[in-house]
Amino acid sequence: MSSFIHPTALVSPQAHLGEEVYIGPYSIIHEQVEIGDYSRIGAYCEIGLPPGGHETFSASYPLKIGAHALIRSRCTLYAGSTIGARLECGHGAIIREESLIGENLRIGSGSIIEGHCQIGNYVRLQGNVQIGKGSLVDDFVWIFPNVVLTNDPHPPSPHLVGVTLKAYAVIGTASILLPGVTIGAHAVIGALSLVKSSIPEKMLAAGHPAKVICPAHHLRDYLNPGKRAYPWPENFDRGLPWENQAFQAWLAQLQESPTPEIKQTSP
Amino acid sequence: MSSFIHPTALVSPQAHLGEEVYIGPYSIIHEQVEIGDYSRIGAYCEIGLPPGGHETFSASYPLKIGAHALIRSRCTLYAGSTIGARLECGHGAIIREESLIGENLRIGSGSIIEGHCQIGNYVRLQGNVQIGKGSLVDDFVWIFPNVVLTNDPHPPSPHLVGVTLKAYAVIGTASILLPGVTIGAHAVIGALSLVKSSIPEKMLAAGHPAKVICPAHHLRDYLNPGKRAYPWPENFDRGLPWENQAFQAWLAQLQESPTPEIKQTSP
Amino acid sequence: MSSFIHPTALVSPQAHLGEEVYIGPYSIIHEQVEIGDYSRIGAYCEIGLPPGGHETFSASYPLKIGAHALIRSRCTLYAGSTIGARLECGHGAIIREESLIGENLRIGSGSIIEGHCQIGNYVRLQGNVQIGKGSLVDDFVWIFPNVVLTNDPHPPSPHLVGVTLKAYAVIGTASILLPGVTIGAHAVIGALSLVKSSIPEKMLAAGHPAKVICPAHHLRDYLNPGKRAYPWPENFDRGLPWENQAFQAWLAQLQESPTPEIKQTSP
Repeated sequence: MSSFIHPTALVSPQAHLGEEVYIGPYSIIHEQVEIGDYSRIGAYCEIGLPPGGHETFSASYPLKIGAHALIRSRCTLYAGSTIGARLECGHGAIIREESLIGENLRIGSGSIIEGHCQIGNYVRLQGNVQIGKGSLVDDFVWIFPNVVLTNDPHPPSPHLVGVTLKAYAVIGTASILLPGVTIGAHAVIGALSLVKSSIPEKMLAAGHPAKVICPAHHLRDYLNPGKRAYPWPENFDRGLPWENQAFQAWLAQLQESPTPEIKQTSP
Repeated sequence: MSSFIHPTALVSPQAHLGEEVYIGPYSIIHEQVEIGDYSRIGAYCEIGLPPGGHETFSASYPLKIGAHALIRSRCTLYAGSTIGARLECGHGAIIREESLIGENLRIGSGSIIEGHCQIGNYVRLQGNVQIGKGSLVDDFVWIFPNVVLTNDPHPPSPHLVGVTLKAYAVIGTASILLPGVTIGAHAVIGALSLVKSSIPEKMLAAGHPAKVICPAHHLRDYLNPGKRAYPWPENFDRGLPWENQAFQAWLAQLQESPTPEIKQTSP
Repeated sequence: MSSFIHPTALVSPQAHLGEEVYIGPYSIIHEQVEIGDYSRIGAYCEIGLPPGGHETFSASYPLKIGAHALIRSRCTLYAGSTIGARLECGHGAIIREESLIGENLRIGSGSIIEGHCQIGNYVRLQGNVQIGKGSLVDDFVWIFPNVVLTNDPHPPSPHLVGVTLKAYAVIGTASILLPGVTIGAHAVIGALSLVKSSIPEKMLAAGHPAKVICPAHHLRDYLNPGKRAYPWPENFDRGLPWENQAFQAWLAQLQESPTPEIKQTSP
């Protein structure tokens, strides 16, 4: 019922805050920002910054942030994107304009979504990830530290050719994805790989340049070599909709259901 | 005629602000800072920080920032550098002391210029680039995300051996340049390359370690394979002095002119 | 005798500040934080943030920071770690909870210690380094920009398998260390290496994947080829306990001494 706005925060009277929203010290909330119920915004955040620099501080279009957001200190979110419920940001993350972002995005400290991106549900970006303009990232994709999704085929050029990551794909630490590549569903890219061409679904690829090594399910579990390590949802469920349930059972249920259960998970 | 200083900003009375300068919320402008006309500084910036930590907040030497600067939120610029007109900074960029920086520098979010560097005109650094102390970067150089210009030949050592990037050179995403290498004019370094030795002008080099592959002009334009992709200025002019003009014509005109036109481009 | 707290800083009355502590503009010091004498904290720092997001701003356990700390602007230090004297942080560094950190740590701008780490004395991290949860880093280790110490053997998984870096080890720029590897004492890892297996002490390893190349002492000094470049402490002493003394003499003295001298170096 009651929100808390730190007395040092600068909140536009035109911003729409839901119920029980917390705004931390020295944060700035611009006009035309909508923040969903039970959201928490740490210190020094700037939310709803108009694109195109600081020419004007009147937002030309809204920023919508769903309920239960947890935005840690020093984040910068531009006006003009729509973000689903339960966004969780590390420190200093940046989300630029005109992106459409699903529910349960976790974006690590220092990571940047450049704008004009489409990001699915339950996507996880770890620290210092850079998602170039025009990228498409499906549900349940994991991206580890320092990965860059590029978009210029011969930089600098006027062309914009985004990367596509299909559902459940895993991109290992510090891998660089060149413009236009598609990583198939459940594919796994090893650390520090240079991905110059598309990788089929369910494959493990790695190297400089990345090459397909084997089906990802050939990898064994670290502690239990009798078990396969991939598809990863069989072994990992923390914070995911199949938590405390078998992934395959959840998946079967999802496919039978006329409306996708994923949209209905409670916090 | 009129500047705007947000009431929460801390601006030293000894700072010199030009006309129509905007200083955003919670920013700090130290003494002996000169900020040119029509400049805009976003929130949470600290401009003119004395080097050597926080031992003293009285600047020992000035920081000069030219007109039309656009410094986005959370940037840290130390005292003791000189920066030309139309500087454009992403969020959280850092520019250390004793650097001489030309006009129209664009430095992306999270990037760091370590100090004691010489940076030409129209240089573009994208996100999370690190330019080591003692680097030399000529006019029109492009550096893509996560590139590091190193400077220690066998770290940690007392030696400082900077990298030199000649005019129009392009350094692809996440490439690492080892101390002392020179990248020739119009040379192109592919993504995720480890550059251990100098690369001649106009060549494409890539790999781990980087090797010369072919003249860069052998690369074809992404959408029009009949056209060459490099030299890039033939295909790309956004925000550059040859905008809406053929690069070769601009170049010819520049070479005939007794004073370089590049210094005279209007905003 | 006298401390300085900027009037815009928010300092909990439950925080314990030593003598002559400086707290810069807009910084936040939470309760149960102990900051040692002569420490300086720049602008926009948040010190003692409770882990687990912003659910509560009452710290559940203390953050102890030793004397003579120099914490530059925009750093975030969580509650629940213990940090020795003479900590020196670049801008925007993050240190998470439950880490045990020795004396004289230098952590560069944008670097992140993820928490639950053990960091020795005189460790140096340069810019944008990421130290994964559960890492062990011994005394005098150097880590250069963009290095990542990972910890998940087949991500995402429930397993946590940290990296171990032994005393005096050197990790070159942008190298990625895979989970569970140990880098031996005085070993040197070249830039942009992918380290998939442990490296014995005193060896130089590099490449993708990293392989042992030769004993590190085969490398020659950049300016004096008659001298070996490694072990690096023979050639470099800035800010280290053997400053203005031969490393071997210091080491001999240390080994004879019943109490390690390293704990007794004065600032």
